[in-house]
Amino acid sequence: MTHESGKAQARQAIDLCRELAGFSEEEGRTTRTFLSPPMRGVHRTLTCLMEQSGMSVHVDAIGNLHGLTAAEPAAPHLLIASHLDTVPDAGAFDGVLGVVLGILLARSAALCPSAKLCLHVIGFSEEEGVRYGVPFLGSRALAGSLDALTLDRCDRNGRSVRDAVGDFGLDPSAIPQARLTEKAVAYIEFHIEQGPVLESLNLPVAVVDAIAGQSRIDVLFQGKANHAGTTPMDLRRDALAGAAEWVMRVEAAGRARRGGVATVGRMEISPNATNAVPGRVRASLDVRHTSDEIRRATVAELLSAADEIASRRGLAIHYQQNLDQPAVPMDADLTACLERAVESSGYPVHRMVSGAGHDAMILAPIMPAAMLFLRSPGGISHSPEESVFESDVAAALDVGAQFIRQLERRYA
Amino acid sequence: MTHESGKAQARQAIDLCRELAGFSEEEGRTTRTFLSPPMRGVHRTLTCLMEQSGMSVHVDAIGNLHGLTAAEPAAPHLLIASHLDTVPDAGAFDGVLGVVLGILLARSAALCPSAKLCLHVIGFSEEEGVRYGVPFLGSRALAGSLDALTLDRCDRNGRSVRDAVGDFGLDPSAIPQARLTEKAVAYIEFHIEQGPVLESLNLPVAVVDAIAGQSRIDVLFQGKANHAGTTPMDLRRDALAGAAEWVMRVEAAGRARRGGVATVGRMEISPNATNAVPGRVRASLDVRHTSDEIRRATVAELLSAADEIASRRGLAIHYQQNLDQPAVPMDADLTACLERAVESSGYPVHRMVSGAGHDAMILAPIMPAAMLFLRSPGGISHSPEESVFESDVAAALDVGAQFIRQLERRYA
Repeated sequence: MTHESGKAQARQAIDLCRELAGFSEEEGRTTRTFLSPPMRGVHRTLTCLMEQSGMSVHVDAIGNLHGLTAAEPAAPHLLIASHLDTVPDAGAFDGVLGVVLGILLARSAALCPSAKLCLHVIGFSEEEGVRYGVPFLGSRALAGSLDALTLDRCDRNGRSVRDAVGDFGLDPSAIPQARLTEKAVAYIEFHIEQGPVLESLNLPVAVVDAIAGQSRIDVLFQGKANHAGTTPMDLRRDALAGAAEWVMRVEAAGRARRGGVATVGRMEISPNATNAVPGRVRASLDVRHTSDEIRRATVAELLSAADEIASRRGLAIHYQQNLDQPAVPMDADLTACLERAVESSGYPVHRMVSGAGHDAMILAPIMPAAMLFLRSPGGISHSPEESVFESDVAAALDVGAQFIRQLERRYA
Repeated sequence: MTHESGKAQARQAIDLCRELAGFSEEEGRTTRTFLSPPMRGVHRTLTCLMEQSGMSVHVDAIGNLHGLTAAEPAAPHLLIASHLDTVPDAGAFDGVLGVVLGILLARSAALCPSAKLCLHVIGFSEEEGVRYGVPFLGSRALAGSLDALTLDRCDRNGRSVRDAVGDFGLDPSAIPQARLTEKAVAYIEFHIEQGPVLESLNLPVAVVDAIAGQSRIDVLFQGKANHAGTTPMDLRRDALAGAAEWVMRVEAAGRARRGGVATVGRMEISPNATNAVPGRVRASLDVRHTSDEIRRATVAELLSAADEIASRRGLAIHYQQNLDQPAVPMDADLTACLERAVESSGYPVHRMVSGAGHDAMILAPIMPAAMLFLRSPGGISHSPEESVFESDVAAALDVGAQFIRQLERRYA
């Protein structure tokens, strides 16, 4: 691929993502949840592009869009995938860009077809977890880990996942058949970083080492609500003062450990009035780390700090663990291959951990998986201000083409 | 008054307060804002009791209920007053108890009438500031400090104070005539403490020295909202971590100064999501102190701490001062008189500062004013759990009777 054609393809990818952002449940902003009506428009547009690129197209029973390049019947499949759903008021690139890049890479590969390797591009129907409160519906169907309980979950209108599938004109009883066959031998996902690291390093792309494990815990500090004017300082049981002291500990714990983060992102304060000593604070704790051991030790340390603070301040304390998701390493061999592709494309190699979850973590347990991050300008994501640099998209296309060539050689 | 009749009167006062709590805008809980329809029921019940006690009754143009004992035309008036409105989901005693005690004291006094001193009991129409966001509408009309701007304020239904007065069947143009005449020579208010101090000292009543001055300031910490998984600790501008550090400083400042309190009671966090680094926190600061100088120095110190924290953390900061209310001392002579009444009734004398605002602070600038606090069991107020001990109410009736006797002697 010449530098010029790379730039043109990058421009096309960006334009297409912006066009797809117009398919939305809401006027004037991009919101596209699992199998909502605007998803049809996305499927229509991408199907057209896939077919123009010589791919055969189908939609599986959970609503994932599949496009496959022509290959020998027994040829192994390289999956290039990401998701097509969005958060509310989303940007144009989170997920969608990875699918668009897959199609453009498949189209380029189709110019000199390799019948020995099938490029299998997938647009997952669901990753964000917005409509049903659980994420990864699309990739979990492919991994065979979408259970009946999840399919029975209902959205705010009382429509279950099964109903939504039927409403979209698909057959929910066929979901088990969406499971991947043994032909699928490798998985790669292109995704925007959604963070500020590549920008701070002034790099276009990074190879993802692993997806961090994550703990989510709600901590309730229960004190006593009182009049802020009439309650002397020494007779207070101020839940917010206790929670604030704990927020300091959480921040310090996050700073003390490389390779991880610790965040209090949410607090519900009661009664939350200017003239009332806060009686109750429910605070969220989110800890992520590549090492599950360090992550769990950090959580234990922070819960014990909360205990100590509460007992010193006469507060009661309650925890609720909402998530204990182990870290998911990417495949060492495939990741090394991706790293060589970055190198041979002439870009500096940087490895990093993904703090956010991605479909790659669902597929990694069943097949070799790798991931490439593209720089997020301003670190901005989940926002209409989300963007990408054209030159970074061109870099990702370069790296993707090199990566595919290496896999073609492997399976030739 | 015998001990037995004191107990019976206290029981009657408590029963009457509980009965009046039934006059509410909301089924099953007590909510009675300025001139709302249930206020008519309160007026009806209290008018009946006042008239049975030989008082002449009228309602002024801002909706205050007045009952006066018979006296010589030129007799000076001792005002015994508190408020009849409530917060939402209120208790039965905040405000109302003071009015009921006034009537019971006037009834007892009427048994051996003093034509030289008129007992003038007032139930203020508004003190809590719920309906119009500004408090003391009733007492401000008596003090002549109810301005046109306040009268033009609208409630959430777009009804102005004037409209509300008209809706209640009163004439808003007559509000200036509600102003007190020179006959009003002294003011006393009985009120529950609404705090835990008397309970912690195991005392039934306290003489109020002064009403603390109060500063209210909103402090906005502006950082940058970011993904909690993808934003490394050292690239964050976490507004909640900054605000939490400041909450610690506020608490420390409150603890470091006797005679005052400092509180962060409210925080609005944005986006307030488990997986997002908080980008913005608006926190309230409430500082109260008997010394205006110390209070203002405390505020200045805390704003400078906020500045320092914000600048170290790369946050922007904005303040908005919403209140700078000077402390209001009670009248030294009248307070000494009240103290003697406590003493001669056989109760230990305790002086304290009121951290909450009361109608007494509106009247104090225009006439000698004094206040007696009754113990609040559990320090609980502004809650259906608000209560009083019968023996404390009996104590307040004893003290009130002694206090009236002293003033009768003074004006005889």
